[in-house]
Amino acid sequence: MGILETIKDPLDVKRLEAGELPLLAEEIRDLLVSSVARAGGHLGPNLGVVELTIALHRVFDSPRDPILFDTGHQAYVHKMLTGRAGHFGTLRQEGGLSGYPSRTESEHDFIENSHASTVLSYADGLAKAITLRGETDRTVVALIGDGALTGGMAWEALNNIAGRKDLPLIIVVNDNGRSYSPTIGGLASHLSSLRMSQGYEHVLELVKNNLGRVPLVGAPLYDTLHGIKKGLKDILTPQVMFEDLGLKYVGPIDGHDEGAVEAALRRARSFRGPVIVHVLTRKGNGYAHAENHDEDCFHSPQPFDIETGEERPRPHSWTNVFSGEMVEIGAERKDVVAITAAMLHPTGLAAFAEAYPDRIYDVGIAEQHALTSAAGLAMGGAHPVVAVYATFLNRAFDQLLMDVALHRQPVTVVLDRAGVTGDDGPSHNGMWDLSILQVIPGLSVAAPRDGARLRELLAEAVAIEDGPTVVRFPKGALPKDVEAVGKLGGMDVLRTGDADVLLVAVGPMAEICMEAATLLDAQGISATVVDPRWVKPLDEALVLAAAAHKLVVVVEDSGRVGGVGDAVARLLRDADVDVPVRTYGIPQRFLDHAKRAKILSEIGLTGQGLARQITEAVARRSQVMESHPARLAQPTD
Amino acid sequence: MGILETIKDPLDVKRLEAGELPLLAEEIRDLLVSSVARAGGHLGPNLGVVELTIALHRVFDSPRDPILFDTGHQAYVHKMLTGRAGHFGTLRQEGGLSGYPSRTESEHDFIENSHASTVLSYADGLAKAITLRGETDRTVVALIGDGALTGGMAWEALNNIAGRKDLPLIIVVNDNGRSYSPTIGGLASHLSSLRMSQGYEHVLELVKNNLGRVPLVGAPLYDTLHGIKKGLKDILTPQVMFEDLGLKYVGPIDGHDEGAVEAALRRARSFRGPVIVHVLTRKGNGYAHAENHDEDCFHSPQPFDIETGEERPRPHSWTNVFSGEMVEIGAERKDVVAITAAMLHPTGLAAFAEAYPDRIYDVGIAEQHALTSAAGLAMGGAHPVVAVYATFLNRAFDQLLMDVALHRQPVTVVLDRAGVTGDDGPSHNGMWDLSILQVIPGLSVAAPRDGARLRELLAEAVAIEDGPTVVRFPKGALPKDVEAVGKLGGMDVLRTGDADVLLVAVGPMAEICMEAATLLDAQGISATVVDPRWVKPLDEALVLAAAAHKLVVVVEDSGRVGGVGDAVARLLRDADVDVPVRTYGIPQRFLDHAKRAKILSEIGLTGQGLARQITEAVARRSQVMESHPARLAQPTD
Repeated sequence: MGILETIKDPLDVKRLEAGELPLLAEEIRDLLVSSVARAGGHLGPNLGVVELTIALHRVFDSPRDPILFDTGHQAYVHKMLTGRAGHFGTLRQEGGLSGYPSRTESEHDFIENSHASTVLSYADGLAKAITLRGETDRTVVALIGDGALTGGMAWEALNNIAGRKDLPLIIVVNDNGRSYSPTIGGLASHLSSLRMSQGYEHVLELVKNNLGRVPLVGAPLYDTLHGIKKGLKDILTPQVMFEDLGLKYVGPIDGHDEGAVEAALRRARSFRGPVIVHVLTRKGNGYAHAENHDEDCFHSPQPFDIETGEERPRPHSWTNVFSGEMVEIGAERKDVVAITAAMLHPTGLAAFAEAYPDRIYDVGIAEQHALTSAAGLAMGGAHPVVAVYATFLNRAFDQLLMDVALHRQPVTVVLDRAGVTGDDGPSHNGMWDLSILQVIPGLSVAAPRDGARLRELLAEAVAIEDGPTVVRFPKGALPKDVEAVGKLGGMDVLRTGDADVLLVAVGPMAEICMEAATLLDAQGISATVVDPRWVKPLDEALVLAAAAHKLVVVVEDSGRVGGVGDAVARLLRDADVDVPVRTYGIPQRFLDHAKRAKILSEIGLTGQGLARQITEAVARRSQVMESHPARLAQPTD
Repeated sequence: MGILETIKDPLDVKRLEAGELPLLAEEIRDLLVSSVARAGGHLGPNLGVVELTIALHRVFDSPRDPILFDTGHQAYVHKMLTGRAGHFGTLRQEGGLSGYPSRTESEHDFIENSHASTVLSYADGLAKAITLRGETDRTVVALIGDGALTGGMAWEALNNIAGRKDLPLIIVVNDNGRSYSPTIGGLASHLSSLRMSQGYEHVLELVKNNLGRVPLVGAPLYDTLHGIKKGLKDILTPQVMFEDLGLKYVGPIDGHDEGAVEAALRRARSFRGPVIVHVLTRKGNGYAHAENHDEDCFHSPQPFDIETGEERPRPHSWTNVFSGEMVEIGAERKDVVAITAAMLHPTGLAAFAEAYPDRIYDVGIAEQHALTSAAGLAMGGAHPVVAVYATFLNRAFDQLLMDVALHRQPVTVVLDRAGVTGDDGPSHNGMWDLSILQVIPGLSVAAPRDGARLRELLAEAVAIEDGPTVVRFPKGALPKDVEAVGKLGGMDVLRTGDADVLLVAVGPMAEICMEAATLLDAQGISATVVDPRWVKPLDEALVLAAAAHKLVVVVEDSGRVGGVGDAVARLLRDADVDVPVRTYGIPQRFLDHAKRAKILSEIGLTGQGLARQITEAVARRSQVMESHPARLAQPTD
């Protein structure tokens, strides 16, 4: 029987002898690798925080001392140490363990939102509440990655925390931005102890002797944290910088030396005020295929073979099409530049970056800056393409509205992972964009139904120079192209039917709308299917088409509230066309994690589900018409 | 003839002798005071940047060197120096000079958005574009206040700018966070020259001799900028801190010594890379009533008497009611805490702060942190009330959605200045909230129609403990209370009519809906008027009420797209109630500045306007019913 099996509660972690911890860490890593190899999920980040998480649970008394994880995908080890190791067989499966903290799973989990850079704000609030209640024995612990510190929210919080010397709050900076060798890790904890106990001169000497061994990569803030680039002075920078803000600083600590981390955390807790503990960890630590993985240390792999590290091949995706098309656009249009918020590979912009290295900007986890710097680039004559996951655009709504759209700047925003994403739970679903984008004056929004349309609409979007554009597409495998059989204004007609039902298919919903139309035929209901391509502004031709049908149905893979369905209904109302409208989309609630296909089926967004719902709607309407035909027919005066 | 009258262009500013500049500054201040005394507007901030703006236009070649203003309300002097001094008689009047930069007014204006902390991102983008185009002789200048540096966006931008040593970009920090005496100003420029040319020791000595004369107030970051609190070491902090980030630093400079500012700017420009120029200015400088104004140095007064500094009295406002009610709630509910993002006085929270000093948090211009720290406070057992202008909530949409609502935390957000605000132009109108809030699962939204309902609904909101709530109300004078004549579910019935029209009045639209109903009577159209009070979720009683009428009309003072009108229409569709709906609200475009009443009249949101539009809608519908009664009456299968 292994040690991990005996851990039912953090108290069990505290009871272990120090000598047992390396074995516990090994068992945790084995379970991490085997679980993610089977189910996919986040691997590199979790392998990096094994010792750190053990130390957190040995030093603090969770949940009385809340341990908060920024982004949450590095909480697997925390789950194992809080009684959930036995459930990793169900990881990321419907009804099984979430890939993120989950309050329904455990009282040890607090934050379910996976959007980065939030944890310091939560921690600030929790620590204030604890202070107000006079609970002086509690400590709030917040774990944040070095990457998340590039997000503005983290700075807003630091600025506030620094102003409150009384907050019992420990900020653990999990600094894994670049790999470091064991030697440097030793230097780091050595440096730390030197700073605590000895003089400045000794540090300088030690740094001088070791400086040449540190690799040189990374983003500006990272350079600040490590201070390698500028030499001696800056090795001391993190301390200086955080202390400028009035924050105490402990570190850097070797995050794989459990004892060192424990000691630092105990010391930090003793201050009874805000302290930063700077921990250096190695992403993927302990699993060679992750450590040596060039792109991102197996940040979030598909299921893979443990021996070879070979991932299940990813299907040809929407992202691939976007990636290839951007390289072509970049060749033709020297004014096109690309912006990513710390997602060069996942957004498919890496190919563009390789082809045009002077025209790519990775701004860090900073969507607000991404959009407003895009506005600035556009004012300067460039046409920026900002590629971002749909859910993260919510971070920059104000900037898209006020900085880009109010100034009518030609910025193209490309939203990947729009619609239901599934496995990663409620904060990853891209189900908000089609609603909040509707309110932005002068913005045009395209929803391609397939790869061919993505190429077409992206080209049309970057050709628009008098205002911003958005192109949005879902996660996953590319569907087969659905060719149009005709045009109606700017809309594609995918299928012609009689006057019964006009089916308005938004983006990739075209596929299931076509299936539904075939099924409806069998019910004696004839449907015309159109794809508006641009869902904002809507094509005026839709009004005439609607007036020629008895029922208009809109299907979209975004939240039902305020989306394209509402927009179509408003367009018709405003034209005094009172044909009944029915709208189908994602119900406006936070969806639990499950496979995308399963969720779509459950919410009725399949060909069969649609056909059934439309048939029922038609039947209900017939009943209403039979019982109250006069009321609906009667003129209003 | 004065000097200012001869300034038609920045070239004219450059041509002046240094000796003429004090007179120019005096003339500018006279025009500022007289213009704002007549029209209202921003006074303190502009009085503080007179010499700074003169220096900017003498050193740089606008618009080839873009001069960008954060927030924009301190651009009056810039307007005067770019050919618009003669137009200040029309300040903030419809068709006249905007109170913010305006691209239709001048090629010297770039940024029209008044939301804070954006300028460094624009500047980063513009400087990147200039660099890409190889325009090596151009420099981008960005002016940002010390307050705006507390916003996360500014930090995201600084982090990016610091990574680009090649960007021709000068960041002028206009540091007016606290008053300083002339002596300290002299010390400041002395300090600066010492730092440039002499050693550390001399600085220390100088600081020692002068430290006692600096007043002690301000926010954490401000303390960092000035480094007063912690003593000697920190007087040197701004330089250290910005240089940690890899930014060159010049300062602090006495912002009222035009020659010193010019010299610093010329020196900064010579670096050809990102440089921070730290300028100390005095808000309200040169007009005693502003300098000595306790609350905010006449930041943005009503029209006032120049001799006495006495403002035109402000009417009893929605803000006053909220302010008083919060003090009462705070007395009863010890768990209620309040949060403001640098708007303690404008939001009316100052009274709460005075009554309960340990339960108020001013987080700086940091709406994101405001919402997520509220989530943390709520998790810790408090019930936070976050008071913010409606337009600025857009900054924290993601945080309200993911950090507050996903976690079902009892946070109450109070939106002041919702709807049309008018004078301050497109980025101040609070016309987005009712749309974007509709998409947030589990959020409840109340729109009080008058002062009595504001008190009621605020009390109901803070009593809700299983999820977030929003209470929104407009700018300005409080209308007379409109008492209900009955209830329908949770809705107030304000007027009963026949089966013709059901008028759904959102919040303060109740007043004009009642007027419209009276006017409609004269047209033979009988209207029932209901106020839903809570506009999300909508009361199910609305479905039955709608089914009993021939036409449903929704009137709201928010953008028409995705607002309450769309929500009512969706509610009815989902219930298979296909009564025609018509929706009136703010047209979905950026509105030019004008008086609120004038705008409401132009967009048809008056009693007369509504009555006319509804009469026409009824008439049009009658025509449709006469020409195609069969189509609309026919069952769909």
